[in-house]
Amino acid sequence: MYTIGIDLGGTNIAAGIVDNDGHILQKDSVPTRAERHPDEIVADMAALCRRLTESVGITLADVDHIGVAVPGTADRERGLFAYAPNLPFRNYPLRDKLSSLTDKTDVLLENDANAAAWAEATVGSAKGTRFSVLITLGTGVGGGAILDGKIHSGFNSIGGEFGHMVIRKDGRRCGCGRKGCWETYSSATGLIRSTRETMEAWMNAGKKTLLTELTGGDPAAVTGKTAFDGAARGDEAGKQVVEDYIADLACGIANVINLLQPEVLSIGGGICNQGDALLIPLREQVYKEIYMGDAAPRTDIRIAALGNDAGILGAALLHR
Amino acid sequence: MYTIGIDLGGTNIAAGIVDNDGHILQKDSVPTRAERHPDEIVADMAALCRRLTESVGITLADVDHIGVAVPGTADRERGLFAYAPNLPFRNYPLRDKLSSLTDKTDVLLENDANAAAWAEATVGSAKGTRFSVLITLGTGVGGGAILDGKIHSGFNSIGGEFGHMVIRKDGRRCGCGRKGCWETYSSATGLIRSTRETMEAWMNAGKKTLLTELTGGDPAAVTGKTAFDGAARGDEAGKQVVEDYIADLACGIANVINLLQPEVLSIGGGICNQGDALLIPLREQVYKEIYMGDAAPRTDIRIAALGNDAGILGAALLHR
Repeated sequence: MYTIGIDLGGTNIAAGIVDNDGHILQKDSVPTRAERHPDEIVADMAALCRRLTESVGITLADVDHIGVAVPGTADRERGLFAYAPNLPFRNYPLRDKLSSLTDKTDVLLENDANAAAWAEATVGSAKGTRFSVLITLGTGVGGGAILDGKIHSGFNSIGGEFGHMVIRKDGRRCGCGRKGCWETYSSATGLIRSTRETMEAWMNAGKKTLLTELTGGDPAAVTGKTAFDGAARGDEAGKQVVEDYIADLACGIANVINLLQPEVLSIGGGICNQGDALLIPLREQVYKEIYMGDAAPRTDIRIAALGNDAGILGAALLHR
Repeated sequence: MYTIGIDLGGTNIAAGIVDNDGHILQKDSVPTRAERHPDEIVADMAALCRRLTESVGITLADVDHIGVAVPGTADRERGLFAYAPNLPFRNYPLRDKLSSLTDKTDVLLENDANAAAWAEATVGSAKGTRFSVLITLGTGVGGGAILDGKIHSGFNSIGGEFGHMVIRKDGRRCGCGRKGCWETYSSATGLIRSTRETMEAWMNAGKKTLLTELTGGDPAAVTGKTAFDGAARGDEAGKQVVEDYIADLACGIANVINLLQPEVLSIGGGICNQGDALLIPLREQVYKEIYMGDAAPRTDIRIAALGNDAGILGAALLHR
């Protein structure tokens, strides 16, 4: 038996055909072209499904179900793509539309961050646990929680907005309207901002830092790697940025653990390429901060295993 | 059929006998005397159960089960009172001990904050919902979450430490070791501290405030009511304390909603006696801050209904 996972993004529609063991046999993608009518986007999703089945020599009749990870609110019970901040879907009957375009194949919907967390819990870094959390450090801080073996999304399907937890009240202004949200500090965007601010402060103070050398002194050239690269070469400004970044990240993670106590908390996103330079001091700081009884087992903090495939895999495995 | 709920506290052991409709027929209590051996405390719990049944003319054979709300970590599966910060229980087989002392009556254990949340969800302010949170504003900020109809406590039974979520990184030092925990601002203790600090600042600046008049200028006379009383009479210092208090409380509540999206979030504790003076501005502030899609239904914020009986009731209703 096969399933198909579709990861609907603002830029691309990615899909994969997945076998019983949770392996992706074949992947494919097309541009989303988000300005189109939802019906056209769904037609492309159906076409992608057909192309995938053909490429591995099966038909849609061999597909048990299609899962769709959507960048917004999925009303799972009614099969609606309820809301997306960046796509034109509003209470759109995605389940029924895609099902009828694919010869009545069963269709399941889920929010994309939840689907990724589900994939990590099912076949990834948190495999074998009933309580896990995935935190993704990207443009924002996204997340999903699996609690007692089920995807948590609250009574209205929009729970798990980890990035919009304030950790520094009256701090950096966030796009959501609050000030001091975790994601304004701990996303890749937040790290780039901190790196720029520190680099400029050092330049204005007439102090030398490798950050200037690494970027040619151009704030626009700062990336999520710049501060880590500087720190690795002993640069004081770089070390300060990295230390502050890890402290804020640890603060939010400790908050999440104090509330949810997952067995595994995984972090994903490009920053995780830093590996031990991130993970070792992060663990140390989090374990200092979490609220524990004497002998209770504590959350294991890991790097996410599935990378960009997590959305496809989570969607494909929604029946589990 | 009857059940018994026991609320084991650091000062008193309170218990009640509860009928099928979730009403407490009779209550009783004895001092905990926490310095004693756990076996002695449990013997008193069993004696209390017998006295309660006799007082309503039944025997323990008429009792379906005994629930115990404990001030610490309950290992529900193994029936252990695993850990308490203020009582001498460590991995203590409370279920089996109490069961054998009460003629093999079934015994169920739960953390006290979770039991209170369960009571509110079952027969109190959040009755009829599957997702609810109770936040109790007392010496600390306690809480419990009911998610998808089940008590949430994480993989290690210690989830739901809402008070130890940092909202002001590097802020007030908390007993847990972190700085800026929600409870250092939003507990009754936090409010008293803020009131004292503001009163002293105004006194030191030679400015008049009703807070001085209400307390005779004695910081030790400040209570959780002082600032609200001052604010109600138009005092500027009192209004400032209340406004800041509500802003911090709203910040933490918005964080909890963004993560958990309960249908009802109830707040309990003495501060709730302020009623609308607290609830109306609190709701307004929380609704400004939560992260919502276009049309998703939003969390209802209520005052808890069960007061000090929540622990007894939650324990008595654990079989539901």
